[in-house]
Amino acid sequence: MTSKRQMKLGAFLYPTGHHVAAWRHPQANARAGIDIEHYKLLAQTAERGLFDLLFLADGVGMRGDDIDVLSRTAIRYTAQFEPLTLLSALSALTKHVGLVATASTTYNEPYHVARKFASLDFLSGGRAGWNTVTSADDHEALNFGFDQQIAHPNRYKRAEEFLDVVRGLWDSWEDDAFVRDKESGLYFEPEKLHILNHRGPHFQVRGPLNIPRPPQGYPVLVQAGSSDAGKSLAARTAEVVFTAQQTVEDARSFYTDLKGRLAAFGRQPNALLIMPGVFPVVAETRSEAEDKFAALQDLIHPEVSISALSRLFGHDLSQFPADGPLPEGLAETEGHRSRQQVFIDKAKRENLSILQLANSVAGARGHWQLVGSPSDIADALEERFTGGGADGFNVMPPYFPGGLTDFVDLVIPELQRRGLFRQRYEGQTLRENLGLARPAHPASQPSTNHRRTA
Amino acid sequence: MTSKRQMKLGAFLYPTGHHVAAWRHPQANARAGIDIEHYKLLAQTAERGLFDLLFLADGVGMRGDDIDVLSRTAIRYTAQFEPLTLLSALSALTKHVGLVATASTTYNEPYHVARKFASLDFLSGGRAGWNTVTSADDHEALNFGFDQQIAHPNRYKRAEEFLDVVRGLWDSWEDDAFVRDKESGLYFEPEKLHILNHRGPHFQVRGPLNIPRPPQGYPVLVQAGSSDAGKSLAARTAEVVFTAQQTVEDARSFYTDLKGRLAAFGRQPNALLIMPGVFPVVAETRSEAEDKFAALQDLIHPEVSISALSRLFGHDLSQFPADGPLPEGLAETEGHRSRQQVFIDKAKRENLSILQLANSVAGARGHWQLVGSPSDIADALEERFTGGGADGFNVMPPYFPGGLTDFVDLVIPELQRRGLFRQRYEGQTLRENLGLARPAHPASQPSTNHRRTA
Repeated sequence: MTSKRQMKLGAFLYPTGHHVAAWRHPQANARAGIDIEHYKLLAQTAERGLFDLLFLADGVGMRGDDIDVLSRTAIRYTAQFEPLTLLSALSALTKHVGLVATASTTYNEPYHVARKFASLDFLSGGRAGWNTVTSADDHEALNFGFDQQIAHPNRYKRAEEFLDVVRGLWDSWEDDAFVRDKESGLYFEPEKLHILNHRGPHFQVRGPLNIPRPPQGYPVLVQAGSSDAGKSLAARTAEVVFTAQQTVEDARSFYTDLKGRLAAFGRQPNALLIMPGVFPVVAETRSEAEDKFAALQDLIHPEVSISALSRLFGHDLSQFPADGPLPEGLAETEGHRSRQQVFIDKAKRENLSILQLANSVAGARGHWQLVGSPSDIADALEERFTGGGADGFNVMPPYFPGGLTDFVDLVIPELQRRGLFRQRYEGQTLRENLGLARPAHPASQPSTNHRRTA
Repeated sequence: MTSKRQMKLGAFLYPTGHHVAAWRHPQANARAGIDIEHYKLLAQTAERGLFDLLFLADGVGMRGDDIDVLSRTAIRYTAQFEPLTLLSALSALTKHVGLVATASTTYNEPYHVARKFASLDFLSGGRAGWNTVTSADDHEALNFGFDQQIAHPNRYKRAEEFLDVVRGLWDSWEDDAFVRDKESGLYFEPEKLHILNHRGPHFQVRGPLNIPRPPQGYPVLVQAGSSDAGKSLAARTAEVVFTAQQTVEDARSFYTDLKGRLAAFGRQPNALLIMPGVFPVVAETRSEAEDKFAALQDLIHPEVSISALSRLFGHDLSQFPADGPLPEGLAETEGHRSRQQVFIDKAKRENLSILQLANSVAGARGHWQLVGSPSDIADALEERFTGGGADGFNVMPPYFPGGLTDFVDLVIPELQRRGLFRQRYEGQTLRENLGLARPAHPASQPSTNHRRTA
C-alpha cells in the first residue's frame, strides 16, 4: 500500500472520439453513437485500465442549424444514445467503473432526475454520478417550448434550487428505513420516511422519492461550469469538477480559486476533486504520435472547422478569406471571453490563417492537447497533478476505440510505474474509488455517518 | 410451421409479485424492487418461456398518504427501480424479449420520452415499447408542481398531442439518412432530415430528435386506458392494449368495441392487439393451486386490504365493522363505476363481510384471477382467446420468481401442445414477434414500407 497521492481518471466517451473528424478515421466505427457493442468495448477497456469513471456529456437537441455543416460532423449530438439509458445498459456489462451521465437542470424536473440517478446507483451497486449542466444552447431550448434559452443568471438560480430538491429527495428515506420484516408485515419504518414538502420559486415538490436512499447516499455530483455562478454552485454542491485550461498557470489559478471557495460552505478542500479535460494523442514514440495527429487533422473538412471557430467567436468567419488572417475586433461573447483571447493571441503569435487556426482549434475542440510518447504524456499530467493544477484528469481520446486502448496500454502503466495511479480499485462504489465521503442522512448522527462510510 | 392463430404473452413484472402480500411470501425476495439480479432472473425466465415482452407499470410517486398502510405494503411504488433505467440494464442481459416501460404523458416532456425510448430501441436491437399513461393519482401531481392532478379530459388532450409530437420526432430522420461516408465526409444526407416544428396548444417542439429513426420505426405503442377518451386514443395510436375484465362477456364486449373503433382512423383490426391482464395461481393439481393461493391470502394484513377496498370505492371503509356487510349507497367514482358494481354484486351474492370482500379483492387487486392446474389455466385462456375476447394476455404472477417459473414450466408447454403459443421467436424485433407492421416513414413510398418490413 502506498500513501502517495494518486490521480483520478475519467474516460470521457464520445461516439467516435473527441477529434472533430474522428468518425472518418479508418479505425472508427462510424455507427458508434448507436452501437452498444462499441460502448461495451470502451467501458470494458476503461475498466481494464482501472479508470474511476466513464463520463458522458449531453445535449438535448442537435447543436446548430447550418445543415450543411452539421451533415459533415458526428459530434453535435445528432445521432447518439441518450446517456442515462446507455449507462444503465453499461451498468450490467461492468463491475467497477463509475457511470457519470449529464442531465440538464434547465429542461428536466428534479423528481425525474433524482429518481433516475438513484435507480442507476442501485443498478450499478453504487457507481452512479450526475453531471449537472444548465444547457447553454438555443437549439436545446426550442425543443422544450422556449423561443430561446433562459438567461444565464436565471439558469443558475434554477440549478441551485434544482440541486437542493434533488438532494432533499435522495434523503426521503433514512438508510435503514426499509426493514422488510415478513413476520410482522412491516415493510418500512414510518418514522424513517421524510416528506420533503419543498416549495420554492422554481419548484414545488412534495416527495418522497419512490426509491430508497441510494447506495452512495447521493450519486457523485459532478459539474463543469467555469463562470462565477458556475464556480459558486460547484463550491457549494459539486464533488468533481471538469475544466478546460490550456496552461499550467491557468489550471493552477482555477484550482486555487475553486478550492478556496469551499470553506465558505463549510467544506474541506478534498471534498471536491478538480479534473481538467485532456486530449492525448499517444504512440510508442513522439514522432509516431505526431504522425497520428497529422493524419487526423488531414480528415477535417474546412467547412466544419471554420464553423466551429465561428461558434467559438459568435461570428460567421466563413465570409472572410480562409487563407487570410483573423479579422480585428471580434466581439467578446459572454462566458467565453478568456477562451476567445487565448485563440486570438495564438493566431497572432503563430501567424495563422483563419483555416489554420480553425483546424488547430477544431481538432481537439479547444481542449488541452498532448501529442507524444507515453512518458511525454505522463510528464505533462504529472506536472499539472503535482503542481497544484489537478486532482486527476478527464481523458478525451481523439478516436475510439484506438485512442482509449492506447492510453490504457501505454500511459496507464507509465503512471503506475511512477506511483501516480492505482494498481487496483480501492473500493466498491465510485465514491470509495474517488476517496469521497458518503453523505450522512440529515437525520443521522455524525457517528452513524462514520460507521456507515467505513 | 403452423398457420393457427397464436396468443401473445406479456410478463408483467412487479417487484415481489402481483399479490398484495407477495413480499411476505417465504420465497419472495423482499428487496426485489432494487435488486437487478432479481430482475435478471425474471427477464431470463420470461425469455426461456418465449414471452413476447416484459411489461413495467409505473407511478411517479408513492401512491397514498396513509403512512401506516403504506408501511405494510410493497406495491404502491415506494421502493423500486425507475422503469426506463431498469429496462435499459435488462436490454444487455436478454436477446429476444420485448421491453415495455410505462411513461406518463402528464409529467414528462415529449422530447425526452421520444429520445429515451428510441435509445432503448437501439440498445435492445428493436425490442422497445412505450406504455402511455396519463397518471391518475393526486400524489404524483404533487411531485411536479401541481396541487392536484389535472382533470381527466385535459390529461387526454395533452396525451393526444404528446403522442403526435413523439411520433413526429421519431420521424425526424428517414431510415437511411445517416450514410456515414468516410471518403466524402458526408455523415448524413441533409434532405433526409425533417425538422418537426410542432406548435400546438400544449407543446412547442422544433426537433429534430438527436438520434436516428429507431430500429422498429416507432417503438411499439402500448396503452391501458378503458375510459371513452382512453379507448379513442388507443384506437388512433395504440398497437397493444392491456385491459382488466373479469368475465368472458365483458372481455368480448371491450374487444369488439375497441376493434370496431379502428376503422374510423383508417386502421385494420389486426393493427392493435388486445391483451387482458391475468393473475394465475398454478400448480400441478388444482388443490395444490388452491392451497398456494390460500397461503398467500393468509399473509394479507387487514389494514392493507381494507385500505385497498377503500381506495377502490373512494370511501374510507375502516370506519365500519370489518366483519359486517358493505354499507349501502357507496357513491360511484368517475372512471371506476363498472368495477365498483362488480364488487358490490359479488359481496351481496356471496354474502361477504367487508374484510372478506377486501381480501378477495386485494389478493389479485381486482384482476382476472385463475387458480388451478395447468390445463385449468390453459382452458380459461383458450376460451377467452378463441372466444373473441383477447389476442393474448399480460401475465401477472402472484409472486416472483416462483409464480413466473410455474407459468413457464407448467402453462407454456400446455399452450404449446394446443398450438396456441409459439415454439420459438418468429423475429428479431418486438414488432416482428407481435406480428405488427413497421411504420413507414411519411416521406417514403408505400412500396418502400413493404420492402423494409419484410
